[in-house]
Amino acid sequence: MSEPTSSKPSGRVGRVAIIGAGLIGGSLGAALGARGLATERVAYDSSPDARQRLVPTIADRVASSIAEACDGAELVVVACPVTALDEVFARIGRHAPPDCLVTDCTSTKRTAIAAARAGLGSLFERFVPGHPIAGSERSGPLAARPELFSGKAWLLCPLDAAQSAAADRLAPLLTAVGASVERMDAGEHDAMFAEFSHWPHAVVFALCAAVARGGYGALAARFSGAGLRDTTRIGASSPDLWADILLDNREAVLASASRFAEALDALRDRLENGVRGDLVELLAAGSEWRRTLD
Amino acid sequence: MSEPTSSKPSGRVGRVAIIGAGLIGGSLGAALGARGLATERVAYDSSPDARQRLVPTIADRVASSIAEACDGAELVVVACPVTALDEVFARIGRHAPPDCLVTDCTSTKRTAIAAARAGLGSLFERFVPGHPIAGSERSGPLAARPELFSGKAWLLCPLDAAQSAAADRLAPLLTAVGASVERMDAGEHDAMFAEFSHWPHAVVFALCAAVARGGYGALAARFSGAGLRDTTRIGASSPDLWADILLDNREAVLASASRFAEALDALRDRLENGVRGDLVELLAAGSEWRRTLD
Repeated sequence: MSEPTSSKPSGRVGRVAIIGAGLIGGSLGAALGARGLATERVAYDSSPDARQRLVPTIADRVASSIAEACDGAELVVVACPVTALDEVFARIGRHAPPDCLVTDCTSTKRTAIAAARAGLGSLFERFVPGHPIAGSERSGPLAARPELFSGKAWLLCPLDAAQSAAADRLAPLLTAVGASVERMDAGEHDAMFAEFSHWPHAVVFALCAAVARGGYGALAARFSGAGLRDTTRIGASSPDLWADILLDNREAVLASASRFAEALDALRDRLENGVRGDLVELLAAGSEWRRTLD
Repeated sequence: MSEPTSSKPSGRVGRVAIIGAGLIGGSLGAALGARGLATERVAYDSSPDARQRLVPTIADRVASSIAEACDGAELVVVACPVTALDEVFARIGRHAPPDCLVTDCTSTKRTAIAAARAGLGSLFERFVPGHPIAGSERSGPLAARPELFSGKAWLLCPLDAAQSAAADRLAPLLTAVGASVERMDAGEHDAMFAEFSHWPHAVVFALCAAVARGGYGALAARFSGAGLRDTTRIGASSPDLWADILLDNREAVLASASRFAEALDALRDRLENGVRGDLVELLAAGSEWRRTLD
């Protein structure tokens, strides 16, 4: 990664190791490639199947181990599922060059930071806890696309001055793939994403499960409208991935769950009792907020 | 409306009265106009403001009363809010020609049928309970567009042989505006739409209200992803309109609410207790169903 004083133009990097070449890692590889931002992109994925499916748009070279991927890397990007973090960071700590930058893309920062602290050793000083706000209900390298990060926020949560300096070095590259870089406290990040993403996924999964188990699930493809499709789109996401994310950020997610349960109980109560004015008031509170999102 | 034996081509109609020129009524007017399907489109809206905003794309003429709109109509389309149905049907019953067809667009058939039975008198024999499955979080005549019904289902719920014959006469016109006409029992319809539309709207409104009242509502425009936007899109809908729909179909909506509460409680329980396998199973039940929608 080029220092501001280096001869390389800002936002370019030497060899990048991408650990976990799914939607996020694959899209980053594709974005770096499409814009010519890296000297070499080396990808590793724990699944041999995924490794075989990796295409030149995503990586210049496929490594068969994390050690091989990290060899000579200036930047290591961790984009694996949250359950693999402990092992991945431990291997990076053993095999990555001492001066390289490490970042991750996990949607819960607390766990990623704990795993990185335990595994990275002295590289932890050059670790930048990160989270690109770019997802899809699709996953895997075949879902990757170079424009995934365009116009999206990429949050960085450095813990101290050393990590903050590492974030300064990483930021131009993220800007160069189209993202808008923002910094945020890690705990704040986790509470916010429980609220904006993790708990809403749980609600949608539960709604889908209830419709599936009700008497009309099989008729939805014929008779439901665009509303149900949009509302439930994220319910097509990977159950394994999302079970891990929900469990991982459980405390913050359950806090969001309690606030939601309060609003839902109030709504059901007003509906049962037919109190139109109070019901309108509750719907209006939601509607007013939603209109700020457009 | 042309009988199959009439000289008019199938799917064309003489004078159409549109009562309630919002998203649905306005779009039907626009669709009839764009395709040249009606000799004259006369629109009435109870709001003087809405009447002033009506444009030639929606109607050829704006009536200042329901009586005036119904004069000489071959077809009267009721597209007003559910709370106005009693009065609207009573006026149509007094003023519409004895041989005209009447249909409605309300998303709860039970109430519309009761109001029509009470208000239409002998015209009830020519009443076709209807529901176009085409909505939007936007409302009002300015949201109207002629393609709203293209490729969408338009459900008809005739109660007896006479209404069924009326549905036979109405169907070609609905097909001509691009809809796919299907018939269904009215009670079945109401339970199905509680499940596919009414209760999901309630869930989304509650989710929006909870986020609005939590600590992060103001940051969502900057930091939330496409997932939250899609999930909550219908939360921008009109609180007044939706309070009436929910109250109107309350019994079926509360049945859907109970099934959802069961799924949600199970999910929270599995999350609290960290039972990953059971959690994955529940998410997978939802995810599997959602994938059938694409």
